[in-house]
Amino acid sequence: MISNSTTTKQFHFEILYQSKRSRARVGRIHTPHGIIDTPNFVGVGTNGSMKTLHNHDVSKSGLQLMFCNTYHFMVQPGTELVKEAGGLHRFIQRHQPIITDSGGFQVFSLAYSHVAKELKGQGGKKHASSVLKITEEGVLFRSYRDGKKIFLSPETSVQAQKDLGADIIIPLDELLPFHVDETKLKASFARTHRWELRSLYTHLKHPQNQAMFAVIHGGADLELRRQSCEILTKESFDGYAIGGSLGSDTDELVATVAGTTPHLPTEMPVHLLGIGDLPSVNRCIPHGIDTFDSSYPTKIARHGMILTKEGPLKLTRQIHANEFRPLEDDCTCQTCQHYTRAYLHHLFKANEPSAASLATQHNLSFMIRLMSQIRTEILCGLI
Amino acid sequence: MISNSTTTKQFHFEILYQSKRSRARVGRIHTPHGIIDTPNFVGVGTNGSMKTLHNHDVSKSGLQLMFCNTYHFMVQPGTELVKEAGGLHRFIQRHQPIITDSGGFQVFSLAYSHVAKELKGQGGKKHASSVLKITEEGVLFRSYRDGKKIFLSPETSVQAQKDLGADIIIPLDELLPFHVDETKLKASFARTHRWELRSLYTHLKHPQNQAMFAVIHGGADLELRRQSCEILTKESFDGYAIGGSLGSDTDELVATVAGTTPHLPTEMPVHLLGIGDLPSVNRCIPHGIDTFDSSYPTKIARHGMILTKEGPLKLTRQIHANEFRPLEDDCTCQTCQHYTRAYLHHLFKANEPSAASLATQHNLSFMIRLMSQIRTEILCGLI
Repeated sequence: MISNSTTTKQFHFEILYQSKRSRARVGRIHTPHGIIDTPNFVGVGTNGSMKTLHNHDVSKSGLQLMFCNTYHFMVQPGTELVKEAGGLHRFIQRHQPIITDSGGFQVFSLAYSHVAKELKGQGGKKHASSVLKITEEGVLFRSYRDGKKIFLSPETSVQAQKDLGADIIIPLDELLPFHVDETKLKASFARTHRWELRSLYTHLKHPQNQAMFAVIHGGADLELRRQSCEILTKESFDGYAIGGSLGSDTDELVATVAGTTPHLPTEMPVHLLGIGDLPSVNRCIPHGIDTFDSSYPTKIARHGMILTKEGPLKLTRQIHANEFRPLEDDCTCQTCQHYTRAYLHHLFKANEPSAASLATQHNLSFMIRLMSQIRTEILCGLI
Repeated sequence: MISNSTTTKQFHFEILYQSKRSRARVGRIHTPHGIIDTPNFVGVGTNGSMKTLHNHDVSKSGLQLMFCNTYHFMVQPGTELVKEAGGLHRFIQRHQPIITDSGGFQVFSLAYSHVAKELKGQGGKKHASSVLKITEEGVLFRSYRDGKKIFLSPETSVQAQKDLGADIIIPLDELLPFHVDETKLKASFARTHRWELRSLYTHLKHPQNQAMFAVIHGGADLELRRQSCEILTKESFDGYAIGGSLGSDTDELVATVAGTTPHLPTEMPVHLLGIGDLPSVNRCIPHGIDTFDSSYPTKIARHGMILTKEGPLKLTRQIHANEFRPLEDDCTCQTCQHYTRAYLHHLFKANEPSAASLATQHNLSFMIRLMSQIRTEILCGLI
């Protein structure tokens, strides 16, 4: 175990209130680029832009943490170029906290033909990257963009994330498909932890004021989840992310989370990877999840699905054609401050690109307000 | 001739300076929703949104006049619904001046298979509207959206434009294809003027504080252009738009404009329909054109073509991948205030929707600054 006491001066997690009813808590993650109030929603800006939005508008919306994907930046424009630009914050002009992943999820998604949701949306052929070789050392894959061979290992992933310079980074892990036999599962489980430790040790050589969150694995097997926690909590990670296969429905997801968080130190922040639908958010917070990243709220917006306190609203339905009121009466987002459902319905019907961006702005604002409301409910002893 | 002296109280054109070198002038069009400094660029917001932009951002950009298409609003969401919403300004939340056209251009474009440029971009099949019948009374066409039959006549076009309530409206005219024999041309020429007068008389029954600009026709035939001016300047229009076939290149366009404006009263504003490329703008202003509408600057932006003082710049070229400076150093648009060419290049390469909107914002800002610069040059005696 290498101490990181000198490495994360600017990073710490402060718990303001611990619920007496559940593991839910209200806290603050302090980072070099500012505070993240928790529990909170983490917006997905894969390529350095939340789809359809501008970072200067996103900042105004109050989003405190943005998730960028290292895989995408390795392929385009290359992490060296981002470093040359002065790092990700400067390159994409986001002056608040950023988290990057390791690139592993995307690469393994492709390897196992489990193409990640965010890739699916962009058409199959373009993203037909091929994984050339997986060894103990790492993964060799071919860029879908220019055919260039890229080697992803714990060391190169961390180096890429050093180039990017996000506030929170993630060690390389191995993603397994759902149905594998126990031998393969155990071998993957062991390798993923070796890779995470190699990632951590690489990180700690040049911490650069970055924090690293370990990724807890073990699939739906709660004993493996416990073992994963046991291995990783011995190391000097700055927080934990629950990753890997989380089950096939919300019940399985919640059971996995509920069986995992008790094995994590309460004083550390816990992130849930890739989950942001409202039922999961509501059910995982009592189990001590502090942050959720998901492209779900922004993706459904582009298809005209609007989040409201009364439930989701399909804006393209004819019923909204002459509703001369905002998406939500008390919403303070730019969309609700200026436009009616009727106008937004019309923009969707007329295939205007501004429809998607206005709807996205609202759904993002909804998630930010929802999380603020949840923090209040925890403080009021309701969760 | 019906007097419109009581109808346009809030509309008038004020000439601040008349060039001594040319017909160029600096002026102000006063409308119920504010002033348009001239010469100026008119942004195209076909469906009530300049593609990729939000009207509250467009207002901040300083765009003083927006062009909306009556045909598109007739088809979706219907002009009655816009009226029910309180008119176009309120429906689309634009509080500055708006101009609408008659719908004729789009309908006749389809009739003669000269599909208008802005329709082309949206794919052929969807817009395969069919013109069912053209008579002296008007044009019957079928909506591409729902198959509904819509009758466009001088009276229904003006009624639709009354529903919309733009500050400046345009009478219905007939658009002829390039190659027709002289008999057909003369018949069309006569009909177009009958339709314009029917439009004007319909308008003047309920002027609603709207101004109507006549459309000068005659194709490339300068004698017909002169006759068109003679007919239309006898009527109480509030300004003139040069329309119809303007020739096949910039030289023909300029020759047509140069042969037309001397036949128009100098005290009235003159608009050039559908033209906004820089060579045409620069060459037409000395002939007395006050306003230009065009989707060109915003359309090329969506394809990564950036307007700069040094000429257009193809942002997707590799040369821009590591240019860590704004599109233009002295540009005050939100895009140039926040982002580098390298980041914008990356967004285009990564197919991020925000690339198009950031580029559009810049090109719009460029046009607004260009026109301001041109006004200064006129005032300095340079044009």
